[in-house]
Amino acid sequence: MTDRALVPLVCPRSVAVIGASRDPKKLGHVATKNIVDGEYSGRLLPINPEADEVLGVKAYPSIKNGEGDIDLALILVPAPIVPKVIEECGQKGVKTAIVISAGFREVGPDGAELERKLVEAARKAGVRVVGPNCVGMVNASIGLNATISRVISSKGLKKGGIALISQSGAFGAAMFSWAQGRGLSLGKLLSCGNMCDVDETDLLEVLEDDEETRVITMYIEGVKNGRKFMEATRRITRTKPIIVTKIGRSARGAQAAASHTGAMAGSDAIYEAVFKQTGVIRAEDTTQMYDFAIAFQTQPLPKGNGFVILTNTGGPGVAAADACEAQGLNLVKISESGKKKLRELLPPFASVANPIDTTPGISPTIWGRVLETLLEEEDVYGVIANIVGYSRPIEIAEEVVKAFMATVKKFSKPVLFSWTGEKAIDPLIGTLEENRIPVYPNSERAVRAMAALLEYESLVKQHSGNRPR
Amino acid sequence: MTDRALVPLVCPRSVAVIGASRDPKKLGHVATKNIVDGEYSGRLLPINPEADEVLGVKAYPSIKNGEGDIDLALILVPAPIVPKVIEECGQKGVKTAIVISAGFREVGPDGAELERKLVEAARKAGVRVVGPNCVGMVNASIGLNATISRVISSKGLKKGGIALISQSGAFGAAMFSWAQGRGLSLGKLLSCGNMCDVDETDLLEVLEDDEETRVITMYIEGVKNGRKFMEATRRITRTKPIIVTKIGRSARGAQAAASHTGAMAGSDAIYEAVFKQTGVIRAEDTTQMYDFAIAFQTQPLPKGNGFVILTNTGGPGVAAADACEAQGLNLVKISESGKKKLRELLPPFASVANPIDTTPGISPTIWGRVLETLLEEEDVYGVIANIVGYSRPIEIAEEVVKAFMATVKKFSKPVLFSWTGEKAIDPLIGTLEENRIPVYPNSERAVRAMAALLEYESLVKQHSGNRPR
Repeated sequence: MTDRALVPLVCPRSVAVIGASRDPKKLGHVATKNIVDGEYSGRLLPINPEADEVLGVKAYPSIKNGEGDIDLALILVPAPIVPKVIEECGQKGVKTAIVISAGFREVGPDGAELERKLVEAARKAGVRVVGPNCVGMVNASIGLNATISRVISSKGLKKGGIALISQSGAFGAAMFSWAQGRGLSLGKLLSCGNMCDVDETDLLEVLEDDEETRVITMYIEGVKNGRKFMEATRRITRTKPIIVTKIGRSARGAQAAASHTGAMAGSDAIYEAVFKQTGVIRAEDTTQMYDFAIAFQTQPLPKGNGFVILTNTGGPGVAAADACEAQGLNLVKISESGKKKLRELLPPFASVANPIDTTPGISPTIWGRVLETLLEEEDVYGVIANIVGYSRPIEIAEEVVKAFMATVKKFSKPVLFSWTGEKAIDPLIGTLEENRIPVYPNSERAVRAMAALLEYESLVKQHSGNRPR
Repeated sequence: MTDRALVPLVCPRSVAVIGASRDPKKLGHVATKNIVDGEYSGRLLPINPEADEVLGVKAYPSIKNGEGDIDLALILVPAPIVPKVIEECGQKGVKTAIVISAGFREVGPDGAELERKLVEAARKAGVRVVGPNCVGMVNASIGLNATISRVISSKGLKKGGIALISQSGAFGAAMFSWAQGRGLSLGKLLSCGNMCDVDETDLLEVLEDDEETRVITMYIEGVKNGRKFMEATRRITRTKPIIVTKIGRSARGAQAAASHTGAMAGSDAIYEAVFKQTGVIRAEDTTQMYDFAIAFQTQPLPKGNGFVILTNTGGPGVAAADACEAQGLNLVKISESGKKKLRELLPPFASVANPIDTTPGISPTIWGRVLETLLEEEDVYGVIANIVGYSRPIEIAEEVVKAFMATVKKFSKPVLFSWTGEKAIDPLIGTLEENRIPVYPNSERAVRAMAALLEYESLVKQHSGNRPR
């Protein structure tokens, strides 16, 4: 459903940097360097009327002189020149531009007038414009860091099925680099900027059509066009989960948002209702947004509301049971045959009622078989497993991890872990996560992520039920 | 207000390990090794009727033969022998014992009968008993790891003003090792076990009198004696904050708790009211408990409800403003003279209304001076500062950190930070934290911690107002 002109936005075969500069202090240099330093295999065309090359790459005096077709123009020239540059983009046949330059609506009435001129030029030239006043975009899959961010490393960008649309440019870039550093599968970043033309919903539609993107996260202060957003999200959420951190929910926050991006934050109750109706999952903050995103990215959806809590010590089991009740997750009864199997596997004082408390000191093999027994239960649609300690000797912990991974792979039911313990377990948590098993720092966070999966599953089911026969 | 017999519990000058074993598979070996491996400078007396030494330390056949005064007995013998051993402790004049052995109330009616005998023996012998069925205790200040935990490293235990009382033994140990590995100033662990004699409130009173402990955290499923808990906490919270994660809040959770520790979880609404009345701060989960504890451990209390948000990019400022409104924190107006100073320091498009948005790219010196200007404001009682990105070149980030630390030290107002960015900033976050400046992963978490400080401050103020003249 994307406007065709926006297709090249995430996967351009060629990028022109208009305003590319040899001066390291200029953003036109940072943007060019970010692309050069990466593994982008498309064509890069620095545009600079006064240089033959920028950072070793042949430069052109104007985009009109640029060789071959150009998919995307990244614009960093001073604000007053931007409308003219957009006109030239149109003459060259460039259909998509990202205007990074600032100095538009965000600086007051004169800037707003300039932004109006920019939009007019874009319409005339037939160019779709992202921005102005944004940080750009990243697509790790093609090694392209087309941003002015100094915090995103272009080298060794990690691909990932999670994408982020951010109305806060610098924060979006910081979150992207944070997620990259922690292996969180965030592979794409799209910065909204002033949204003079392309808005957050257009960007959603771009990601809707992007095959690699499986989960969309959004950090927004408001929605530009409510009806358009609702129509798009209602459709997109049927195939891809959208997780939103919507800030500016309070009066004071909304006021701050207005002075930041000029977004009309609107009543939070309305947003809440819109998200519910359209199946958008709302996260409380960015920590929770990625807690959820990782679960969606790695786990199958639970096919029903029936869960079991597995723990090797009481506390986290109780905490998880609390969280399940608060989130509306049903803890199922284990079948008599299941209980019998568990009793055979576990010491006499273990609890085989849900939560299953194995008691500490269970061998790795038993761990795996207990988890398997639970996943085999017909009424169990997902497991929240909590490990406490279990790190000495580390070889045993490694065996536990292996047993878990082998068991989880046999089923297509979601399994979310929490593991509390010393620093020595960090590499093992890394191994689990590399094998698509999310590990949360406490059982409550794992439960909340499971609840997000279930919420989304109910929605998908509801929609398919409504489909015309 | 501690029973004198409990004084040696956290700072024993001598510890006897009754049931010390040479067999690495036995818990009596693990406990002895945990003490031997640490830096405990008190006397250690392994008690074993069949060995001359355990792990190179001279052993005694019975506690009665132990040389000199013994402050604390750590008991690991089989459950049926425990009452007799307690009797011998009394004969030797040992006033405090931690019974680690399991096989009591938690295993059923026979165990409950044995526990009754244990209590009877303890009363007769004049011995106060922690446990049974607990993991023991740790005091990092004296290098003593008197637990059966395999996840707590005895070597290089880090001292800290935060203490943890846990009704979940293994989880308490895991949290302790987690906090130690992350430099969270958690220096003491007390495990409750079955609470046949000493309960969670007695342990609170032990920590009340422990000078080093500045903040008490509790992971509990219930309180044994409501009136006693209320009396003690009402008094203790006047001098030391108590932060509680109370699990078993839901019906299902309470049921799981009952089968775990036998605690009567009680109605959560009653607990909520008790915590409010007594000034106990409730945390939602363990992540939040340590978010709060670190703030209490490092920051002065805000002297009033007036705060300012400082950010270098819009998003986190808006999110923080939302969180402030949700938490009842007032965002104050900056004075005209303050605004004038800020305008002189900041670029023209920065926002000098609260939230203060410096816009990105501010120099370290300016960062420091802006923070100083805000802390100088009379109506500002605390600052929530959010840094986004700011990590290239890393030398500049280092300068920012230095400027922050120098400025924060000049004032006695709480300053909580959030910093979102790439992995390269982790060591700098470490530096800030070592210098007693907490850094949270997002601005919302910093705000919630500030709200906990304010809640506690209001309580302290209220109490001092109520004091008899």
